[in-house]
Amino acid sequence: MKVSIGVSNRHVHLTKEHLEILFGEGYELQKKVDINQPGQFAATDVVTIKTLKSEITNVRILGPIRPYTQVEISKTDAFKLGLNPPVRDSGDLKDSESITIIGPNGSIDIEEGCIIANRHIHILPVQMKEYGLEGKEFVDVKINGEKGGILSNVKLKVSDEAYYELHIDTDDANAHLIKNGDIGEII
Amino acid sequence: MKVSIGVSNRHVHLTKEHLEILFGEGYELQKKVDINQPGQFAATDVVTIKTLKSEITNVRILGPIRPYTQVEISKTDAFKLGLNPPVRDSGDLKDSESITIIGPNGSIDIEEGCIIANRHIHILPVQMKEYGLEGKEFVDVKINGEKGGILSNVKLKVSDEAYYELHIDTDDANAHLIKNGDIGEII
Repeated sequence: MKVSIGVSNRHVHLTKEHLEILFGEGYELQKKVDINQPGQFAATDVVTIKTLKSEITNVRILGPIRPYTQVEISKTDAFKLGLNPPVRDSGDLKDSESITIIGPNGSIDIEEGCIIANRHIHILPVQMKEYGLEGKEFVDVKINGEKGGILSNVKLKVSDEAYYELHIDTDDANAHLIKNGDIGEII
Repeated sequence: MKVSIGVSNRHVHLTKEHLEILFGEGYELQKKVDINQPGQFAATDVVTIKTLKSEITNVRILGPIRPYTQVEISKTDAFKLGLNPPVRDSGDLKDSESITIIGPNGSIDIEEGCIIANRHIHILPVQMKEYGLEGKEFVDVKINGEKGGILSNVKLKVSDEAYYELHIDTDDANAHLIKNGDIGEII
């Protein structure tokens, strides 16, 4: 079964409380562009993420606000920042890495919340059935091309709100020479 | 068949002529540490690689001098530098990318020579036979772990001077959470 691929650059999700510390009381995220998952958008707003070792500027915030603050980076970013984040589902933040987030109005130190997002496919329950994936939690995805191969441990994230798409980080994209919108195949 | 993995960071090979332009007449590379391939070493010497868009400093030279000058970078580096290098065997430089190399004594603009090195395994002829690989030019290599999978199009580089080892770049390493010395399996 073919699946379109979305490449996720490093980004941040924020709670309302943290958004207001970083950008000021009553601040609301400004939408730059909708992303494929329904209701989700890339904001015009960016922050700096910082550790004792280094920092990365212009890290985009994805909206809307969430019940948890989370920083998603690649392993390449992690080396630059001197961090060792676990590979996790979004929202599974227990004992993940600490990091500082700096906005125009203030900064926050989060004790945990920095992760490497796992490879995952957003999929509807009806598609799980239609594609013969019922009962599966993980799949392998074949990538064609000069630096192609197979991505293992790709999590199926089943939701009534899903837009069917494989999400990978920039390390997986660059290693396999994958561009946004390229096609993989669930095997 | 298991194979130990060596992770190659961005690096440069130089001709004698180019070495002398960059470091001065009669200069010889200073060995920092031997690498596993017989006779090859990482030098103490580093250069800056530069394009109109950006530059990367502290790029290590691998010695000894070679009959061609070559800059090996990752796709992540290529985005930073605004280049689109082909995936190539070492020494196969026709129509590869242009780049500027800057040393303490001078700089050179090379018309071609910047590549993304292909995934490859150094292997002895006797090992090709012993491991049942005779006649094969490419293999797939299985990588275990949370972000594991299969690396396709891994070139077999057969030589009487080979130290049996899989070489990958930092994008492949970071995407699969591979460290120097980790083990893959030819399948």
